[in-house]
Amino acid sequence: MSDNSFGKLFSFTSFGESHGKAIGCIVDNVPPGLPLTEADIQPYLDRRRPGQSRFVTQRQEADQVEILSGVFEGKTTGTPISLLIWNTDQRSKDYGEIARQFRPGHADYTYQAKYGIRDYRGGGRSSARETAVRVAAGAIADIALRHILGDSYKVTGSVVQIGPHKIDRSQFDETIIDQNPFFCADAEAAKSWESYLDEVRKDGSSAGAILEISARGIPAGLGQPLYGKLDAELASAMMSINAVKGVEIGSGFELAALDGREAGDEMRQGETGPAFSSNHAGGILGGISSGQDVVVRIAIKPTSSILTERQSLDIDGNEVNVRTKGRHDPCVGIRGVPVAEAMMAIVLLDQLMRHQAQCGIMPS
Amino acid sequence: MSDNSFGKLFSFTSFGESHGKAIGCIVDNVPPGLPLTEADIQPYLDRRRPGQSRFVTQRQEADQVEILSGVFEGKTTGTPISLLIWNTDQRSKDYGEIARQFRPGHADYTYQAKYGIRDYRGGGRSSARETAVRVAAGAIADIALRHILGDSYKVTGSVVQIGPHKIDRSQFDETIIDQNPFFCADAEAAKSWESYLDEVRKDGSSAGAILEISARGIPAGLGQPLYGKLDAELASAMMSINAVKGVEIGSGFELAALDGREAGDEMRQGETGPAFSSNHAGGILGGISSGQDVVVRIAIKPTSSILTERQSLDIDGNEVNVRTKGRHDPCVGIRGVPVAEAMMAIVLLDQLMRHQAQCGIMPS
Amino acid sequence: MSDNSFGKLFSFTSFGESHGKAIGCIVDNVPPGLPLTEADIQPYLDRRRPGQSRFVTQRQEADQVEILSGVFEGKTTGTPISLLIWNTDQRSKDYGEIARQFRPGHADYTYQAKYGIRDYRGGGRSSARETAVRVAAGAIADIALRHILGDSYKVTGSVVQIGPHKIDRSQFDETIIDQNPFFCADAEAAKSWESYLDEVRKDGSSAGAILEISARGIPAGLGQPLYGKLDAELASAMMSINAVKGVEIGSGFELAALDGREAGDEMRQGETGPAFSSNHAGGILGGISSGQDVVVRIAIKPTSSILTERQSLDIDGNEVNVRTKGRHDPCVGIRGVPVAEAMMAIVLLDQLMRHQAQCGIMPS
Amino acid sequence: MSDNSFGKLFSFTSFGESHGKAIGCIVDNVPPGLPLTEADIQPYLDRRRPGQSRFVTQRQEADQVEILSGVFEGKTTGTPISLLIWNTDQRSKDYGEIARQFRPGHADYTYQAKYGIRDYRGGGRSSARETAVRVAAGAIADIALRHILGDSYKVTGSVVQIGPHKIDRSQFDETIIDQNPFFCADAEAAKSWESYLDEVRKDGSSAGAILEISARGIPAGLGQPLYGKLDAELASAMMSINAVKGVEIGSGFELAALDGREAGDEMRQGETGPAFSSNHAGGILGGISSGQDVVVRIAIKPTSSILTERQSLDIDGNEVNVRTKGRHDPCVGIRGVPVAEAMMAIVLLDQLMRHQAQCGIMPS
Repeated sequence: MSDNSFGKLFSFTSFGESHGKAIGCIVDNVPPGLPLTEADIQPYLDRRRPGQSRFVTQRQEADQVEILSGVFEGKTTGTPISLLIWNTDQRSKDYGEIARQFRPGHADYTYQAKYGIRDYRGGGRSSARETAVRVAAGAIADIALRHILGDSYKVTGSVVQIGPHKIDRSQFDETIIDQNPFFCADAEAAKSWESYLDEVRKDGSSAGAILEISARGIPAGLGQPLYGKLDAELASAMMSINAVKGVEIGSGFELAALDGREAGDEMRQGETGPAFSSNHAGGILGGISSGQDVVVRIAIKPTSSILTERQSLDIDGNEVNVRTKGRHDPCVGIRGVPVAEAMMAIVLLDQLMRHQAQCGIMPS
Repeated sequence: MSDNSFGKLFSFTSFGESHGKAIGCIVDNVPPGLPLTEADIQPYLDRRRPGQSRFVTQRQEADQVEILSGVFEGKTTGTPISLLIWNTDQRSKDYGEIARQFRPGHADYTYQAKYGIRDYRGGGRSSARETAVRVAAGAIADIALRHILGDSYKVTGSVVQIGPHKIDRSQFDETIIDQNPFFCADAEAAKSWESYLDEVRKDGSSAGAILEISARGIPAGLGQPLYGKLDAELASAMMSINAVKGVEIGSGFELAALDGREAGDEMRQGETGPAFSSNHAGGILGGISSGQDVVVRIAIKPTSSILTERQSLDIDGNEVNVRTKGRHDPCVGIRGVPVAEAMMAIVLLDQLMRHQAQCGIMPS
Repeated sequence: MSDNSFGKLFSFTSFGESHGKAIGCIVDNVPPGLPLTEADIQPYLDRRRPGQSRFVTQRQEADQVEILSGVFEGKTTGTPISLLIWNTDQRSKDYGEIARQFRPGHADYTYQAKYGIRDYRGGGRSSARETAVRVAAGAIADIALRHILGDSYKVTGSVVQIGPHKIDRSQFDETIIDQNPFFCADAEAAKSWESYLDEVRKDGSSAGAILEISARGIPAGLGQPLYGKLDAELASAMMSINAVKGVEIGSGFELAALDGREAGDEMRQGETGPAFSSNHAGGILGGISSGQDVVVRIAIKPTSSILTERQSLDIDGNEVNVRTKGRHDPCVGIRGVPVAEAMMAIVLLDQLMRHQAQCGIMPS
Repeated sequence: MSDNSFGKLFSFTSFGESHGKAIGCIVDNVPPGLPLTEADIQPYLDRRRPGQSRFVTQRQEADQVEILSGVFEGKTTGTPISLLIWNTDQRSKDYGEIARQFRPGHADYTYQAKYGIRDYRGGGRSSARETAVRVAAGAIADIALRHILGDSYKVTGSVVQIGPHKIDRSQFDETIIDQNPFFCADAEAAKSWESYLDEVRKDGSSAGAILEISARGIPAGLGQPLYGKLDAELASAMMSINAVKGVEIGSGFELAALDGREAGDEMRQGETGPAFSSNHAGGILGGISSGQDVVVRIAIKPTSSILTERQSLDIDGNEVNVRTKGRHDPCVGIRGVPVAEAMMAIVLLDQLMRHQAQCGIMPS
């Protein structure tokens, strides 16, 4: 059981460093007979591709995905699907000077402490570069889920806060999320973020963000108590994404301050089953989906690679001051949206299969 | 691989319902030769035992743990340790009337939707009763970690917010945590919480809470990237606890609003290795421990079982109004402290063993 | 993931030593809604219970199984089922003198070498006593499989060789397997084994055996290539049984000497699907069931506990001569039959659930 | 946890079909700091490469392995190592005519039954082509084990029987194993096998084989009772190899006929620890290594692809007669030697790491 695998049934195993030859993964337990081509996966990768606006890293990567196995004559065969993405635009020289320095906020020091060796080029394995692989694996999960659950199913992610600037919920418009460089559902907020991030970048600094991912059309009953709960798996999936420092389900941390009479979502009979008065629970009760939208929010810290000089140490313990050049996202949170959507889809398909195995096996 | 197991190497597998005969677990991969008796585990259970103040459920459970295997002549043998706790004070009649009703905020509806059958007595498997098992397993992890890491190691949990009332950080005094009914490190706050919770209870309502768990004396290098990251495992562990709806590491959600220049903890040379200027990262960088304190905060929703009438459905889809009688914690968060401490210790020992396996095997 | 667990979806986690307080297990991922009581499981345990003939150990154990969780009002709830069996007849004094000696052929030396400590009473964890737990878990698998697959499904085990004495295949009569103390399908052979084993016991020695377990009514398509193959899982399951030193599928080792023209089972159209000309493959091709009977044979070494003095060492490295008193099976293979049947049922249900998860999830 | 992964700590996840673009794997939990280049792995692959004698398939594959990740400046970094082998010599036309036919003895029928779709080209995923990947992963395990255990460690495999023709044990000479086309340690036997296999091929048939793999220099104490036993893991590893139908440890099936007084290997004090009088146990007692050589034998069925016409069915259920053209090993067992050696090394390193995690963690 690889520590670079995620998922119990629907699972993927990932490899690759920021400036190595390639990154990729092996996706397993894909339902057989699913129509799938590279062209089906590519659009998902294109959404997170770097270099698309001045608010993300200018590194140019085509991120063309190649299917090496598991698909035959345009359909999945049920055998593992190997996905490969070649690294093309590595400027390792950018990193030469920090080969021996630990960048504050980065994993340089901890990788060195753990392994006694590290591929320092662009952060090596700890780089967000790897998230392209998750998006590719998530694409397969999303395509399979649409095939299984139909059009009612949809995973939607957006940025709801950049730095201190939140969106206005009353302005939330799902249809504009892909029409601005921030995956933002509030047109006004998107505008204000532009000027804010320009400033941040001029200052040689960076900004954090909060993302919200929700899934609709999810049947009630998904989740494996007690240690494979839907929310626990989502927490693990989201926290495994680079720079994520917090995860909450539904009203999350706000629930601590709510009164017990508000907190529990009431139920009444709806047209197509139970109708809930609210969704503080984020669609999950006791670790199992309730049929409401599954709602997750994640906090992403500001990009650690900034031009401002910071105090640090080098590999010999000498005190040094570090300025991180190279091409970096002023706000890594933005490109986290397709990644978080991918992890959501992966968790949901895995849970659907786990549920099917136990609860779909008895003769009616 | 059981869905009721937690941990990859140091692991436990749990069983039991709130009003079944017993609850318990099998703890595996315990280091051999560790001195261990029931008397070593009992104090951990006593800290979460119900009925100790008017702010927790009045259900009386001795929670006496029994070791059935894996210990010989006072020492662990390396074989699985079975821990058993008999249920003694089940008042099932309290629950009779809700046998067919779904309590809002509870897992009644989702268990029914998933399995088509449920043990409704006290919430059955979804009851926080099971957390006693985690505390017992966590006790073994904690004892082993102290044995391996020495006295510098310590896991400390406390309640930092109840309802809207936060503690005053400047008053944080670890030594008083066990001297009030709230596991609170701020004497003033503890007082104010008393009156607040009395009120809440009179109103037939309940309150949420925020807990903070930190571990000190943790060596740098623990955590398995990319899908066994220390923070991801902690997130999964904490989110698996009943009523937890949010998990954050270090400054967590606050990091989203911080400027990149503040967010990254700077390093200088200290007496015994790197000294950090701050701990926004909560002791984890790139999913690997940095040697700083590992700090986790969790949000716990208000107890769903309240005396106030709520709208819901019964098993046949009829609309009903539900008042939850029975004996309940006005704030389940309080008793969550020893549970969250236990999960922290379990994750840390598991990670220590995983690290040892890969990085402690090469000849120097 | 516990090293004392078996199975990926349908799984059980076992605990207990030969002379500890109790043995037991937690069975997980049991399909919900399955009618189940202790009385349904007990008959399986009674078949392997010691003391039923002079050819097995005279230790008296009631082996009464107790269900502690996961069953409500006579039906499984889908939550983990804890099964407990108390040890009642421990005569530890029998073992006192070998507390410091390594019994040849036993795991005394290897447990000591691995853990630096061992529960020597009756072999502790390495004793075949633990197999009662497998039989209890296997009973649940067998009951579930009959529920799911119907009456065409049946697992049948028998002893086909004791010492050098094989059964006569032409005399194979399934109906008499439970009518002799050897689980033997050949009445003549059973008689001859009686006198043979009496002799062996008089000589203070013991005998080995070969068991054959077959499963019928297994649909084609079960097995997860490449590292969850049905035959690989069966091999692991069988080899994990005490004293088993060999496993073969279908014609097994004989296949090495067969000509390629005989070896491959030919196919023709039958009434209810493909009809095979032979079953050298033992019902498994490429790790996946073919719809033929799944046939496994296992070799069990002679009981290591014998009255004849053997050369060995003690814990301090002193050379000693060891005679193993106590109550032992002259041929442990005999009581291995219900154990091997149980492991077969567990593997089959696990595989059925794994298959269902991946291949039963797409809409038709 | 992928069904195409093997190993709990040291693990690899494999992908690829016989006539797809490429085959490969991701090897995880490799100890960091291990010197490793493609040139270190290649010799292992060269030993199993096709086309090296007239006794193996004439398919020409360079089997050049490419390392895509996990190695930096000639050393392993502890991150996953991706190994890629491009398929170059696919003659799919050879298979066109059996696109709709089930080859007897092959997995064609069972893959179709399981997945409802299959990549028929060269058997797709079920082809022995995938074993190249195991050899590459096993090379890393073998290199790591030599680094950790020193020169006393060595895994040696050889063919001990082809068709009905066994080697003469008294003639066993390890040094000549690589000096004949059969990995045979008996020069006489090797000669006789030449003529035998020529005949078999002329007859349009094929032959089976028995392989023996032994490992020396293995410390006592490796193996995780009860469901991660060293012998159980070896059984699973070996049975997962194509065409393997039997696995035995030490004297295996012969033990059934031995007298209890012969079967248990006696112990006396040797120069460097316990000295055993014999090794019927194959170096494993109670699932844990004893320090003796670990000895495994596996039975491999005759190649199913033969020129002789066999009865079968096609995908529509029509009765057809199948002659398998294409380029095939008259005895697949031969090239199984490096594959079985690889699986042995992988199991041993995995067990060493699992042992280290639990038993190497307590302070002395």
